[in-house]
Amino acid sequence: MENTALNVKNVAKTKGEIKGINTLDRLAALFSIEEADVHKRAEAVADAVLRDLYLPEYEKMELTEKMAYAPRYDKWKELGILPGGAKSEVFHGVVKCSTNLNSDPVNMLLDCLKLGISTGIYGLVLTNLLNDIVLGEPEIRFAPVGLRVIDPDYINIMITGHQHSMFTFLQDRLTDADIVEKAKKAGAKGFKLVGCTCVGQDLQLRGAHYTEIFDGHAGNNYTSEAILATGGIDAVISEFNCTLPGIEPICDELKIKQICIDNVAKKANAELKEFDFENRPAVTEEIIDEVVEAYAARRGTVPMNLMREHGYENTLTGVSEVSLKKFLGGSWKPLIDLIVSGDIKGVAGVVGCSNLTAGGHDVLTVDLVKELIAKDIIVLTAGCSSGGIENCGLMTPEAAQYAGPKLKAVCEKLGIPPVLNFGPCLAIGRLEIVATELAEELGVDLPQLPLVLSAAQWLEEQALADGCYGLALGLPLHLGLPPFVTGSKVAVQVLTEDMKQLTGGQVIINGDAKESADILEQIVLEKRQGLNI
Amino acid sequence: MENTALNVKNVAKTKGEIKGINTLDRLAALFSIEEADVHKRAEAVADAVLRDLYLPEYEKMELTEKMAYAPRYDKWKELGILPGGAKSEVFHGVVKCSTNLNSDPVNMLLDCLKLGISTGIYGLVLTNLLNDIVLGEPEIRFAPVGLRVIDPDYINIMITGHQHSMFTFLQDRLTDADIVEKAKKAGAKGFKLVGCTCVGQDLQLRGAHYTEIFDGHAGNNYTSEAILATGGIDAVISEFNCTLPGIEPICDELKIKQICIDNVAKKANAELKEFDFENRPAVTEEIIDEVVEAYAARRGTVPMNLMREHGYENTLTGVSEVSLKKFLGGSWKPLIDLIVSGDIKGVAGVVGCSNLTAGGHDVLTVDLVKELIAKDIIVLTAGCSSGGIENCGLMTPEAAQYAGPKLKAVCEKLGIPPVLNFGPCLAIGRLEIVATELAEELGVDLPQLPLVLSAAQWLEEQALADGCYGLALGLPLHLGLPPFVTGSKVAVQVLTEDMKQLTGGQVIINGDAKESADILEQIVLEKRQGLNI
Repeated sequence: MENTALNVKNVAKTKGEIKGINTLDRLAALFSIEEADVHKRAEAVADAVLRDLYLPEYEKMELTEKMAYAPRYDKWKELGILPGGAKSEVFHGVVKCSTNLNSDPVNMLLDCLKLGISTGIYGLVLTNLLNDIVLGEPEIRFAPVGLRVIDPDYINIMITGHQHSMFTFLQDRLTDADIVEKAKKAGAKGFKLVGCTCVGQDLQLRGAHYTEIFDGHAGNNYTSEAILATGGIDAVISEFNCTLPGIEPICDELKIKQICIDNVAKKANAELKEFDFENRPAVTEEIIDEVVEAYAARRGTVPMNLMREHGYENTLTGVSEVSLKKFLGGSWKPLIDLIVSGDIKGVAGVVGCSNLTAGGHDVLTVDLVKELIAKDIIVLTAGCSSGGIENCGLMTPEAAQYAGPKLKAVCEKLGIPPVLNFGPCLAIGRLEIVATELAEELGVDLPQLPLVLSAAQWLEEQALADGCYGLALGLPLHLGLPPFVTGSKVAVQVLTEDMKQLTGGQVIINGDAKESADILEQIVLEKRQGLNI
Repeated sequence: MENTALNVKNVAKTKGEIKGINTLDRLAALFSIEEADVHKRAEAVADAVLRDLYLPEYEKMELTEKMAYAPRYDKWKELGILPGGAKSEVFHGVVKCSTNLNSDPVNMLLDCLKLGISTGIYGLVLTNLLNDIVLGEPEIRFAPVGLRVIDPDYINIMITGHQHSMFTFLQDRLTDADIVEKAKKAGAKGFKLVGCTCVGQDLQLRGAHYTEIFDGHAGNNYTSEAILATGGIDAVISEFNCTLPGIEPICDELKIKQICIDNVAKKANAELKEFDFENRPAVTEEIIDEVVEAYAARRGTVPMNLMREHGYENTLTGVSEVSLKKFLGGSWKPLIDLIVSGDIKGVAGVVGCSNLTAGGHDVLTVDLVKELIAKDIIVLTAGCSSGGIENCGLMTPEAAQYAGPKLKAVCEKLGIPPVLNFGPCLAIGRLEIVATELAEELGVDLPQLPLVLSAAQWLEEQALADGCYGLALGLPLHLGLPPFVTGSKVAVQVLTEDMKQLTGGQVIINGDAKESADILEQIVLEKRQGLNI
């Protein structure tokens, strides 16, 4: 979040390209910023966000009210969970959890909601929108996914992490003629970025802007190993979480160069190339030379196990709160009409990670999605869950066959799959904008919508933080495995029951796809009843 | 730390009493602050500290260089471990430790040193000094310790935590005539604060300023239970860590009112009375009324098990970097002479917590201290370790009998015990000022001193953070139990061996008092040899 805001600020200060002017104007209007000059406007937007991040814990952030749905803001105020400065709130939370400090689970859970609001509005929603300003807005299109995207004729760089803004300079440079020439000299056609984990989803989402350099999204967190094992990857560049520990020996074995561009995610055998805005031209040249060197040293000496048939060619991508609405004709009304008529029974956001202990690699997530669409519940996804679902073909228009008869008809009419991919886990923030805009259009609060969330195979702490935002928004949240709270009866009671009275949200724990889908359908039906539809 | 700095700022802004003018002037000089008005001077000092706390991670804190010993500062700069803004560094560290981020133990351990410097200079040294400005400087004196300090004729409030500044308003108010009258009406002679954990040590340390309200220090973290079990305590007021979870049922059983004045340490069955500077008069009245009510409701209805013989009457306290130097005649030369002559073989700082899993309540700490003083090594203490050592009588002048012949003679000549109590664990910062001033006087760097640290029975994360400061200072650090690093050979190697080359420090893990004392003595002897003494 901070790196994203700094990137906007630096691009603005150096009069760089603003690819997402609509998003900039949307935020400037929300923040009441009136700067005629586009770069000054972008800088003011970034500054407003950075200012909030650094407020003390005892001063409330100012953009919360501007960004939040009004009925939710009022509820949060009533519960006393409006967050202070985001960084200080995290500091405060760490202190609270230290040995022999807080012993009151309800007090701690309320803080989790507070941290969830801070994560949701700043870490999710605003990070997406700030990235859109500089990196371009998502556009709906079809794209290939899976191991098939790896083209061995190129020097291939697998990217992992969550900070798209950190790759922007490198990705632009890799298509410059002098750099392509370097690749050609080494025997390749040029460079390609191979998407992995969420930063790969982010490039795929905005892929309309990057057709030349971006090959496609190969897979999610645990797919990293398979991607590397193809032998087609020459380097891994990583910058945040979900660069799985355990890929180090594979990289060593296959002579794949590992480079980290953010020290928070320094891997044991990776080279650290810190990537500040000022020094990025020089660092980029160093990185490129090292990648070319790795390519030259490894190709021909390591086995290739490409799987050109893996994955799908025509996966729908580029879905966002803006591009989807545009696709629907500039209004949410068509979607609302389909929900009201029952052609779409409800909406499920299936988000979060993959997790081997929660039913195997993508198994629970994919099974749950199949069950939900068979019940005419449309699925919106974001996160590593997306990677699993798309690699299983559920995001191609042909997947309409797995949907219930009503949803199938809708999909066939519109030429869309029954599962719409919003991209990286950050895009959970986009899903929640969609939910808010639907609620606004209907004149109801979020907990009244026939909308459920599932982070069936959550793995990272970040997923729990995002889940807390979902609960603060008053949404039902399904998890395949419980978070680490089952030692406390009070905590379980608050999360699964009392939360309904607090925010309208609730946690549902169930590791079985069919049972989970039944529970979520039941909630959707109750919400429909509440709306008299 | 932040609360302490805010307290100085608020006291200064409201033209409150500045009890520690010497400390204020010392800091103002270090920070190059030239303000003639004492309150403006104090505010400027507090602002300088607060400014540093809120810097981003990528901007170095400015006071580090002003506070640090020059050879150490140069070493830290060389190692690239000068800390950025303290809060952001913690945030950064939390991110680094999250799932699937950093996998490089050396990178993480270097960050621990960086966090240690930040903890040491801001959390320890500056917190003590800022508190001295407002709360008064320590003065050497004798005081009673142990359960004997509980006087049942008074309404007794046990205080626990680490933030002395949060009690200052309450403690002043409790001796006002109108408030004493409330106690008298309820049948008591007045109010007394009973010290427990580190905030009790802090009051004891500055006890010369609070003779009327402060009864004495009753005991450390695990002694809390025994203190409450006497029946003589009517309320517990807590504000930070080391308010042990587990005292709740004892308080319920004995009708002891629990009140928290900082929400970070909200206890499940305590009432939260948040204590801002502005609202503290009103909150204080509420607290006092509730404590009186608890006294009235419980006395006569719950059993008393006072132990008036427990503890010691003449325990030396009030030792600080300033009061000790003053005691020595205004110079460190007498101490240095004793070290050079071998009358004092070396200095051991025995600090940190008590911990039941590291050899029982205070057992390892007390045994180790006995072994060390028997080897003519003088012991300086800070933290819950102090509470155990003083309750076992090692801080009375009579304890000279346990010292080796040379140290015994020194103690008898000066009328002091062989163990000098610097008070709360925060005062580890004071020990380190002493070490720095000794090194400065000798013209050597810290790792050359015949000085060792032991946090034999560390329990809290805070103790490990303090330990990292010790390592950054280049000091040998003994621990009875290992920190949670033994799963990594690299981490163990770096901490116990490679650290000697990095900073000059090293970690020694040993759970046996005699063996540990032998190892520490050996290090002291090597350091003496290095100095040709």
